[in-house]
Amino acid sequence: MWEFRSMTFWRAVFAEFFATMIFVFFGLGSSLRWTPGPLNVLQIALAFGLAFATLVQSVGHISGAHLNPAVTFAFLIGSQMSLFRAVFYIAAQLLGAVAGAAILYGVTPPTIRGNMALNTLRPGVSLGQGTTVEIFLTLQYVLCVFATTDERRNGRLGSAALAIGFSITLGHLFGMYYTGAGMNPARSFAPAAITRNFLNHWVYWVGPIIGATIGGLAYDFILFPRMRGLSDRLAILKGTHTPEPEGPQESRGDPIELKTQSL
Amino acid sequence: MWEFRSMTFWRAVFAEFFATMIFVFFGLGSSLRWTPGPLNVLQIALAFGLAFATLVQSVGHISGAHLNPAVTFAFLIGSQMSLFRAVFYIAAQLLGAVAGAAILYGVTPPTIRGNMALNTLRPGVSLGQGTTVEIFLTLQYVLCVFATTDERRNGRLGSAALAIGFSITLGHLFGMYYTGAGMNPARSFAPAAITRNFLNHWVYWVGPIIGATIGGLAYDFILFPRMRGLSDRLAILKGTHTPEPEGPQESRGDPIELKTQSL
Amino acid sequence: MWEFRSMTFWRAVFAEFFATMIFVFFGLGSSLRWTPGPLNVLQIALAFGLAFATLVQSVGHISGAHLNPAVTFAFLIGSQMSLFRAVFYIAAQLLGAVAGAAILYGVTPPTIRGNMALNTLRPGVSLGQGTTVEIFLTLQYVLCVFATTDERRNGRLGSAALAIGFSITLGHLFGMYYTGAGMNPARSFAPAAITRNFLNHWVYWVGPIIGATIGGLAYDFILFPRMRGLSDRLAILKGTHTPEPEGPQESRGDPIELKTQSL
Amino acid sequence: MWEFRSMTFWRAVFAEFFATMIFVFFGLGSSLRWTPGPLNVLQIALAFGLAFATLVQSVGHISGAHLNPAVTFAFLIGSQMSLFRAVFYIAAQLLGAVAGAAILYGVTPPTIRGNMALNTLRPGVSLGQGTTVEIFLTLQYVLCVFATTDERRNGRLGSAALAIGFSITLGHLFGMYYTGAGMNPARSFAPAAITRNFLNHWVYWVGPIIGATIGGLAYDFILFPRMRGLSDRLAILKGTHTPEPEGPQESRGDPIELKTQSL
Repeated sequence: MWEFRSMTFWRAVFAEFFATMIFVFFGLGSSLRWTPGPLNVLQIALAFGLAFATLVQSVGHISGAHLNPAVTFAFLIGSQMSLFRAVFYIAAQLLGAVAGAAILYGVTPPTIRGNMALNTLRPGVSLGQGTTVEIFLTLQYVLCVFATTDERRNGRLGSAALAIGFSITLGHLFGMYYTGAGMNPARSFAPAAITRNFLNHWVYWVGPIIGATIGGLAYDFILFPRMRGLSDRLAILKGTHTPEPEGPQESRGDPIELKTQSL
Repeated sequence: MWEFRSMTFWRAVFAEFFATMIFVFFGLGSSLRWTPGPLNVLQIALAFGLAFATLVQSVGHISGAHLNPAVTFAFLIGSQMSLFRAVFYIAAQLLGAVAGAAILYGVTPPTIRGNMALNTLRPGVSLGQGTTVEIFLTLQYVLCVFATTDERRNGRLGSAALAIGFSITLGHLFGMYYTGAGMNPARSFAPAAITRNFLNHWVYWVGPIIGATIGGLAYDFILFPRMRGLSDRLAILKGTHTPEPEGPQESRGDPIELKTQSL
Repeated sequence: MWEFRSMTFWRAVFAEFFATMIFVFFGLGSSLRWTPGPLNVLQIALAFGLAFATLVQSVGHISGAHLNPAVTFAFLIGSQMSLFRAVFYIAAQLLGAVAGAAILYGVTPPTIRGNMALNTLRPGVSLGQGTTVEIFLTLQYVLCVFATTDERRNGRLGSAALAIGFSITLGHLFGMYYTGAGMNPARSFAPAAITRNFLNHWVYWVGPIIGATIGGLAYDFILFPRMRGLSDRLAILKGTHTPEPEGPQESRGDPIELKTQSL
Repeated sequence: MWEFRSMTFWRAVFAEFFATMIFVFFGLGSSLRWTPGPLNVLQIALAFGLAFATLVQSVGHISGAHLNPAVTFAFLIGSQMSLFRAVFYIAAQLLGAVAGAAILYGVTPPTIRGNMALNTLRPGVSLGQGTTVEIFLTLQYVLCVFATTDERRNGRLGSAALAIGFSITLGHLFGMYYTGAGMNPARSFAPAAITRNFLNHWVYWVGPIIGATIGGLAYDFILFPRMRGLSDRLAILKGTHTPEPEGPQESRGDPIELKTQSL
């Protein structure tokens, strides 16, 4: 449990909390209804995407900028981080999301709050269809995250943050019509907790987690396989892989930090 | 036929199938009509462009991310890949496109499906005008693909994936008013197969293939000529150029892989 | 006071004046009402973001492209520039903003001028809510500025200018509904000075300055701490850190210039 | 007159013709009115910007991708190219623009052609106001061109093509309401020639040329001065600076080619 005593680890956990808070604050806030008429899907999709891109730029080198329990789960399944770290990341993300939604609730006039941009299935979309859509939304996004943060690549990649942000925008351009576009259990959990409305809430956990798992495994085992032995994988999961020295400049031991540095 | 025994080759074919499936799923799905009123051209154009950008980021280093029979044809004509590989790529793209459209059909409420975003000529646009427009749409896009993946360049190129994605967005901003913006025979074939409507379907094969050929030849022979002998070109087409070793890290022998790695 | 005798210093001050003038001219001008109906929030948000991105590309290597008194204040608090330089930057930004708004006033037909895109609290938003929103708008933006210009990072960062521009777009997508999205006291000051309307104007100074300070301190002291002694910090603030040689090519002594060069 | 015998030179002239043709075809075509109601300014602005970005990616390394007589004029004034080259570039741009508009005329149904997206002053905008606006539109764009192609810079620049394209988008977001956003005499000339309507046409030459000159001189002489002697400048203008060897790979002698290569 050397991670527990590392300042870099706690900084990463704090970054996940802080950045998820800002992400949810801006994402939900940009989805509220100030004017009548149909939702402006393009505007909301860009707000979610640019919020994510901005935060990946800001904390990608500190925590990896998952800001999403499904992404953390995919990195855990792909044995790219320890179970210990994953548990703290997910807790920080959920707390951050609820904090962001609560602050948004406080700064918004009561007539505007509505359901706080709660994710709901659109009329005519069944539970199975909604879950399948969430699987695909998250699959393409996690595929993009794994590919843009793959330290084995080099070349004309451009900004990893913008690439990931635009894949979130893409998910919203498609998914808002079906499920409101969850793609992220923390983002879906926050308005559900604030409005105490958990109807069909499981869809927004099951879909993204399945999609993220398929995306991560497809990338790491089929499309661009990592040659890594079982003992290595287990050591990473247990957090005994390599101790992480103090101080941001020197932390080059942990794979997630390595990934992080290359962002 | 050494490619046939290479895992890297089959991974590339699978990547073409998988990524074309996701591209068509998101592209067509973002074009469906959930609300009355005129089509939101900008929103659909961005969805197609960002879908392509995301998938080039995700599988560009695995298969080159053609996701389009016309692009594969242009690379074949420019003798940058073997005939064998081209045939398998095109088959994978068409299968992937139909799979993506079929899944979309399954997850979409029947009242929303419409014609599944079938490409059709707009009223007043003749067959000749439509074909010419498809030629220009694809020409600028293939020119951009050849230029951004040119391994002879370096410098302030930024993200090849985003550049190509935005050139697809551009094609839609112009072309949706004329032909619905095909630019990609796999994308046009999928809804035609699902809805069994092949009226004027040849326009969406002939136009893109002519445009891609002009774009590729203009780049490789006029604008920025490659100095390569006829025997080299023939060896690449026949697939006898250089054997491709197993394993993604070591595959540096095949030109398309070289191109791929520099993405 | 060696900076006072340096051409590079005066070029930087002029760049802040010139670029803030262009930023305010384009930002305010793109927000004027030429057609009836609701404001096009997405269009205005992109105009502000792309204006900032363009100007960071253009003068980022000359002055650091703050173009915003709150950002300059955050760099001062983070001891990344001298007090002397900060005072001249802020004066140049305010003068430039007023000049940009005045030119805009001159080229615009009187019926279109309206309130010159003055920032105002939207109905139902209290002073406290408005200030809190301005804090969050500026916090995410300054976090992004500090992260993208951090010379300790490397890797898949892409364009710093575009990242910062898109974080300004994000701020407008959220903030225009609450406060009109100030985020920048110079931008808010210019139309207030032209229209002589300073109602609640303090919100657009207090909010951004608090947000910028939190963002800068959070980045430099908590998220990714700089190991720098108190005497070093004081030397930078007093401007006695390192003399800056003449000529743009050779200026590598001052930290803000170093930052600037890495843009 | 060694340039006259260089294949690289003629390729660059052809690239200017070909790319300006495509730029004008897509730019004007995306501005036509297929549906009633107000112009979609954001959509047209993105079409012009993405068209330019795509073509800078495609031919930036071949000709520098000016695609604009005002930009060529600014590079001439800044003594970054020979007078001989500038004359051929401008002729190629004007011919290309007319060719693009003519093809567009041919593929478009007669009821849609309208005035072929002719630049006109909006009601209430005087000749002086329109010219001033064109000066500012082009000033920011040429400043961005000079800064992103400056070979003395390095760092987090991202894609020069996208930066320049977005500065054109910015110009349209502001300028379409005042002058229809010319910014480029070739783009303005093409529909005027096709529709034989040259009313106030001089505004779209005088404004951009003044703006480009101010932008180029401000960058090269004030903001980030080039240390270059008068004899060097004269040698570049006369085209006697350094002979340019045949073949794209080896052409490193001419400054515009150097600039081009670093794109």
